[in-house]
Amino acid sequence: MKKSKLLYEGKAKKLYETDDPDLIIIEFKDHATALDGKKKGVIKDKGIVNNKISAYIFNFLNSYHIPTHFEKELSDREMLVKRLQMIPVEIIVRNIATGSLCTKYGCKEGEDLQYPILEFYLKNDELNDPMMNEYHAAAFGLATPEEMKTLVRYATKINAIFKSFFIRRKVRLVDFKLEFGRFHDVLYLGDEISPDTCRFWDLDTGEELDKDRFRKDMGQVEEAYQEMLRRVLKL
Amino acid sequence: MKKSKLLYEGKAKKLYETDDPDLIIIEFKDHATALDGKKKGVIKDKGIVNNKISAYIFNFLNSYHIPTHFEKELSDREMLVKRLQMIPVEIIVRNIATGSLCTKYGCKEGEDLQYPILEFYLKNDELNDPMMNEYHAAAFGLATPEEMKTLVRYATKINAIFKSFFIRRKVRLVDFKLEFGRFHDVLYLGDEISPDTCRFWDLDTGEELDKDRFRKDMGQVEEAYQEMLRRVLKL
Repeated sequence: MKKSKLLYEGKAKKLYETDDPDLIIIEFKDHATALDGKKKGVIKDKGIVNNKISAYIFNFLNSYHIPTHFEKELSDREMLVKRLQMIPVEIIVRNIATGSLCTKYGCKEGEDLQYPILEFYLKNDELNDPMMNEYHAAAFGLATPEEMKTLVRYATKINAIFKSFFIRRKVRLVDFKLEFGRFHDVLYLGDEISPDTCRFWDLDTGEELDKDRFRKDMGQVEEAYQEMLRRVLKL
Repeated sequence: MKKSKLLYEGKAKKLYETDDPDLIIIEFKDHATALDGKKKGVIKDKGIVNNKISAYIFNFLNSYHIPTHFEKELSDREMLVKRLQMIPVEIIVRNIATGSLCTKYGCKEGEDLQYPILEFYLKNDELNDPMMNEYHAAAFGLATPEEMKTLVRYATKINAIFKSFFIRRKVRLVDFKLEFGRFHDVLYLGDEISPDTCRFWDLDTGEELDKDRFRKDMGQVEEAYQEMLRRVLKL
């Protein structure tokens, strides 16, 4: 399967058409942005790490009957995926209170949440990704109530699968982002699962093993990504 | 029923204990605030209008088997209500896109929404009333998932009842706020229903007949409140 036209270049990924209209190639870049694009940088080999972690996890989710866009790994930085019609909604699943949740709701940093919190954000850079809910999705024609219910069911199931997956790798899954899309009218998990889109804390030390090290200029950013790759793939 | 201890004084209301621990008296004031308290003023006889409109509407909702805190009107500015344990969540129901909805989501001002939008806000002045959802309610112990489902069912039913109620009074119900509380473990609608908590547009001219006239310094504020009183009570 060969890359043809560049479809889209985002902050951390390029998408290419292939000769099959149903399939596209994702190329993972080393570029990183944070704080709504105000902070920019490069994390060496991040593209490789994110490609390999995402591929491993999508495969794992497929085995649990969660439909994902993943088809196969093509190279260190590339994977072949179904071409989804993306729903412009980010779903955040939170198990531990940190970051914007604490600023916004005044809850205690690092606290285990009694119940997981699901949040929905409209993907729209110009509007600064405002929080939304299933009623906005219906009124603005983004997703039907049935689709939103399916997303919630998948997100909840994925969280349960992930929590035990990461605990076995000595990692606390703090929170993570999911994006879904339609493929011939069926919903599939898309995007990526990586230290760019999840918060991972070492189970024993609480050390951050994710993009927060870049956001907060904590150093040892590349090392954290490599460490997560080793743990996910059990290398 | 006589007022005893002042329980609480808010922006637009005072709450008094009575000799019955299950009942309190609401006294409606003429004071108005807007823009997170930055704008302050007095709208002459607003307290009377809001008391009478709320009493009329609570009575009307009771006849549709929506449980409300309303017991009876005591005077021009006072009503007797059940003493609810308030749930610190504001529910906004929107039928027409205006105000913060348009700024936040970029939708067209004045547009009829294809489906009504329900929004939930944490009542917390210090945190600027952030938007929330049923997962925050559960995680922060504000309301159980079952209670949130009941609130949604009531809010949806109230919207249907209100829309036809106000159409008959030549008023478009743009959006409105609801607050609920527990009384011996059962949920009741509390607070008030008035031009302070609803957006009302004249059906023919689109003229604002609510607190937006005060917020936006449009003039004819008292007149709008009096007009809504006349229409609601069919005077």
